[in-house]
Amino acid sequence: MFRPQIKVFDCTIRDGGLANDSNFELETVRAAYKACCQAGVDYVELGYRNSTKMFSPQKYGQWRFCTEESLKKATDGIEPRDTKISIMQDSHKADVDDVPPKEQSVVDMIRVATYVKDIDKAIRFANNATDKGYQATINIMAISHEGAPFLDEALQQIEEETKVQAVYVVDSFGALYSETIHFLIEKFRMYLKTKEVGIHAHNNQQLAFANTIEGIIRGANYVDGTLYGLGRAAGNCPLELLLGFLKNPKFNIVPVLDVIGKHIIPLREKIEWGYTIPYMLAGILDQHPEASMKWVEGGGPNKHNYVEFYKQISETPEQ
Amino acid sequence: MFRPQIKVFDCTIRDGGLANDSNFELETVRAAYKACCQAGVDYVELGYRNSTKMFSPQKYGQWRFCTEESLKKATDGIEPRDTKISIMQDSHKADVDDVPPKEQSVVDMIRVATYVKDIDKAIRFANNATDKGYQATINIMAISHEGAPFLDEALQQIEEETKVQAVYVVDSFGALYSETIHFLIEKFRMYLKTKEVGIHAHNNQQLAFANTIEGIIRGANYVDGTLYGLGRAAGNCPLELLLGFLKNPKFNIVPVLDVIGKHIIPLREKIEWGYTIPYMLAGILDQHPEASMKWVEGGGPNKHNYVEFYKQISETPEQ
Repeated sequence: MFRPQIKVFDCTIRDGGLANDSNFELETVRAAYKACCQAGVDYVELGYRNSTKMFSPQKYGQWRFCTEESLKKATDGIEPRDTKISIMQDSHKADVDDVPPKEQSVVDMIRVATYVKDIDKAIRFANNATDKGYQATINIMAISHEGAPFLDEALQQIEEETKVQAVYVVDSFGALYSETIHFLIEKFRMYLKTKEVGIHAHNNQQLAFANTIEGIIRGANYVDGTLYGLGRAAGNCPLELLLGFLKNPKFNIVPVLDVIGKHIIPLREKIEWGYTIPYMLAGILDQHPEASMKWVEGGGPNKHNYVEFYKQISETPEQ
Repeated sequence: MFRPQIKVFDCTIRDGGLANDSNFELETVRAAYKACCQAGVDYVELGYRNSTKMFSPQKYGQWRFCTEESLKKATDGIEPRDTKISIMQDSHKADVDDVPPKEQSVVDMIRVATYVKDIDKAIRFANNATDKGYQATINIMAISHEGAPFLDEALQQIEEETKVQAVYVVDSFGALYSETIHFLIEKFRMYLKTKEVGIHAHNNQQLAFANTIEGIIRGANYVDGTLYGLGRAAGNCPLELLLGFLKNPKFNIVPVLDVIGKHIIPLREKIEWGYTIPYMLAGILDQHPEASMKWVEGGGPNKHNYVEFYKQISETPEQ
């Protein structure tokens, strides 16, 4: 038995872009989009539409900006087209003027990523999107660092002041266990009477898929995955696991298996992602993965001296 | 808040032995045992005590037989010694006469692995162990292939006819989701009024740790892990994640981090384990990982042709 309200998002290119400064080859992006279309995935998020004033186009690839021209190149001629196109805007790194009216865009959905402290900016971006004719969501990042009363107030504001379809629990640090997911989804549902709840999980503790399932059990209907878990640091909920779990017969896992073997596995030569001890420790300690990424990517003979790394990240300054 | 009844088993050498025919170097076994002693792990399972009549000592290493001499070499001189020593016997591949009276052994616990169809053999092995003075458990393998009425009868028999401390749900194929874990743990607890319930999970769908947590939430008090998830195919619940989750202050994760960096990471040159698409598919299809292991270990240019592998393992003969 499946729940037809569940919407699956693939955000391989968007979230994976945090691991390679959004420098994916066009061929990879087209292959990922095509596979998701054929697999019956509901939305594909092809990147960020962040501002060139805040990110250098010399350093960052085109999927950090997702111009209409880039998006057309990524999607033109691909069938079937039931899969909607999503882009993300960071509430503190984007510009409302970079969003044209919907009629001039191939984009269907704009997801606004925000911290609770930036909720007023996020609401402005979300309303900018829905006013211009797009679907929108607000994705609350670093949720493991947020609590009452500010989170509660933010949820109340989103409920009252926006027309977004869904609001996401984003476990940026891969720190949450099933009981915390349960607690947060229920809190979100309590405030968001007219909106859906979503879940975006990271895999530091090998819980991204499990926490997504827990979210679904508790009523989340918007769920994110990436091909083979591709993503920054420990990565994300693997899309193939999600499709294997969901029983909606519209999904077809075969194109997903195909694109993983042909396009995602080869990326491992350029991008390192997945479970490692430094990412696990960042998850357990509920920290941003930056220090872990430096340690893992730095390599060298000390790379597997996990005791030293643990000392480094668990030391706290004297109070 | 922690639950003091929870007992953590490290079975790196025993379960990992399925990936390398139990051919671990003595140095590795001593390092793993020592780290677990220092970390406060309750039990370490150092291998199988299976019969040389059924396994060739030419092919299989000493940890498939775990003679008293081997076990002494693995543990002599290591402090502290609060950590108990466990060995496993397969109910269809072992000999009761290979178990001496407890007074002549360094072993504390004998765990009997069995299929439901062999439950009478398993009870014989378990009673042989407890009669001779050991602690014992029965571990029901391939649980995703078992159902009423035979499983129920087996549980009733174990309750009535043995003195084992615990009975394990063993998800050999990594096929279970949290809801099935919930169902099985409750069924086990219903029949096993005088015994504890255990959980041993495999990681085909990246759910080994999550399913272990789910087991704990539902009342399982005997939980298995291995260092860095080392184990056959997709591997096991990583011990380091389990220690990070459990709040009992007697646990110390540092020696575990140390031994992973120094002894387990280097093993990856000889043993391949962890999440791959072929293991994931075996999990989703609830199959033994043998075909997947052949595919993964066979390598070659076709290794990442997952569509072909999926066709191969999902084809069913005409009925």
